[in-house]
Amino acid sequence: MNDKVQIVEVGPRDGLQNEAARVPVADKIAFVNRLAAAGHTRIEVTAFVSPRWVPQMADAAEVCAGIERRPGVRYSALVPNLTGLTRARDAAIDEIAVFPSASETFSQRNLNQSVDEAMAAAEEVCTESLSLGIPVRAYLSTSFGCPFEGDVSPARVIELTTKLLDFGAYEISISDTIGIAHPRQVTELLHELGARVPLENIALHFHDTRGTALVNVYAALEAGVATFDASAGGLGGCPYAPGATGNLATEDLVYMLDGLGVATGIRLDGIIEASRAIEPLVGHPLPSRMYRASA
Amino acid sequence: MNDKVQIVEVGPRDGLQNEAARVPVADKIAFVNRLAAAGHTRIEVTAFVSPRWVPQMADAAEVCAGIERRPGVRYSALVPNLTGLTRARDAAIDEIAVFPSASETFSQRNLNQSVDEAMAAAEEVCTESLSLGIPVRAYLSTSFGCPFEGDVSPARVIELTTKLLDFGAYEISISDTIGIAHPRQVTELLHELGARVPLENIALHFHDTRGTALVNVYAALEAGVATFDASAGGLGGCPYAPGATGNLATEDLVYMLDGLGVATGIRLDGIIEASRAIEPLVGHPLPSRMYRASA
Repeated sequence: MNDKVQIVEVGPRDGLQNEAARVPVADKIAFVNRLAAAGHTRIEVTAFVSPRWVPQMADAAEVCAGIERRPGVRYSALVPNLTGLTRARDAAIDEIAVFPSASETFSQRNLNQSVDEAMAAAEEVCTESLSLGIPVRAYLSTSFGCPFEGDVSPARVIELTTKLLDFGAYEISISDTIGIAHPRQVTELLHELGARVPLENIALHFHDTRGTALVNVYAALEAGVATFDASAGGLGGCPYAPGATGNLATEDLVYMLDGLGVATGIRLDGIIEASRAIEPLVGHPLPSRMYRASA
Repeated sequence: MNDKVQIVEVGPRDGLQNEAARVPVADKIAFVNRLAAAGHTRIEVTAFVSPRWVPQMADAAEVCAGIERRPGVRYSALVPNLTGLTRARDAAIDEIAVFPSASETFSQRNLNQSVDEAMAAAEEVCTESLSLGIPVRAYLSTSFGCPFEGDVSPARVIELTTKLLDFGAYEISISDTIGIAHPRQVTELLHELGARVPLENIALHFHDTRGTALVNVYAALEAGVATFDASAGGLGGCPYAPGATGNLATEDLVYMLDGLGVATGIRLDGIIEASRAIEPLVGHPLPSRMYRASA
């Protein structure tokens, strides 16, 4: 098990994007600033996507203009195409993320593109982004299962991961979009994946839909992965994936890692503070167990 | 990792005892019958404790009289003293459980006895119960931490576990009463404990207060433990332990074990059915993630 782990905070993007409530720009900016103050060094701030499809992210440029830029913190944003990339560059974002899917039906419903089309778009964005000097991360959605197709083959995940690395993405976040993964699946996939690509280039992105997000992280830690996505308070979900609830909560993850003696650089009480300020704005109690226990 | 696990369903006792709402006897009986129909072979049905202190369990005899006795299912009850044992015997209970604590302050507040006094009472109950031919299980509360004292030493847990086995208890359920354990602590305690007592005699009892219950089970599985307590829907908590929320949910546990290929004999949909019938009676949404995802 690595003695140090990187957490990518996705609350302001994957979290708020999937909340029904609209959070005012000033509160989003304060949220990001609090997360950085808590010790996060990687924060996904927003998404440069069509405001028609994702109205929650229509304020992307304003959020980027308003946040404090702490030295040592990388502020990233989701980018689906070259238009988004231009907007992200104009917003002086440090890093972008593309997000193809491993399952055909999900790709059609989420992106209105086939997997091949989404991969071609990802390649185009990667090439252009790298030429601008902006590093690229890639999510690979529905890597552990699809709400429409069921099982997703590890071979397919490995094939697409390898391609995304070839496109120049420095890190692939293998995503359990619908929170269906269990630890044996994680162990087996990472075993196969680790034989093909360096695990330093792999992150894992779990949702806690069935309560298994943290145990999946543990299995991945045992397999040698050291980068995990999490969302303050467990904000979020996925509107295109029936039954998908919030992301793995940053508080729950940090509590476990602290106990394991794995360094994250993140102060648990700082995350709880950030969650406490955002909770009244999303209109429901945040699901993080550790957050609730702290009340 | 064992390929077969026993789950001890504690929802009707640890769950309902700690819910504010009073559930009518007929509904408790139906709940127990549904849990047995779902495949549980060990169900903690009630507690023969003082109705003055625990009014939720005042109907213990009626519950025991009303439940169907399925062949192959062991119906157990909590028993603090000889009076409780007599009531349990009269109720034709298959197995009883004593419940001393590993921390002095918690013992005083929960049982109004010192640890030594509670251990002496446990010994007395064990001796008498075994002479009646009724097997005894023991819980060891606050084994991973005390809400008043903080850390609890593994040496103390091992000492008390050994004594309880000497008293004739066939299984000790090492209990994280306040849901504070993390997987490293579990691994380390079981490593030390396994050097002193057979792990076949050890069960683990986790609460999900900080989201770590399932990952703690996983660490315990890896260490060789094969018996776990869980509560349908994640019912319960502990009124004497500030901040303690529900037990590990049976649904979350079974979902993970099914994924791991570990046999439990329990049908997930049967547990969900039992939870669905009890939920309206406790007056709040049940916290189990898997249960909520099934809605």
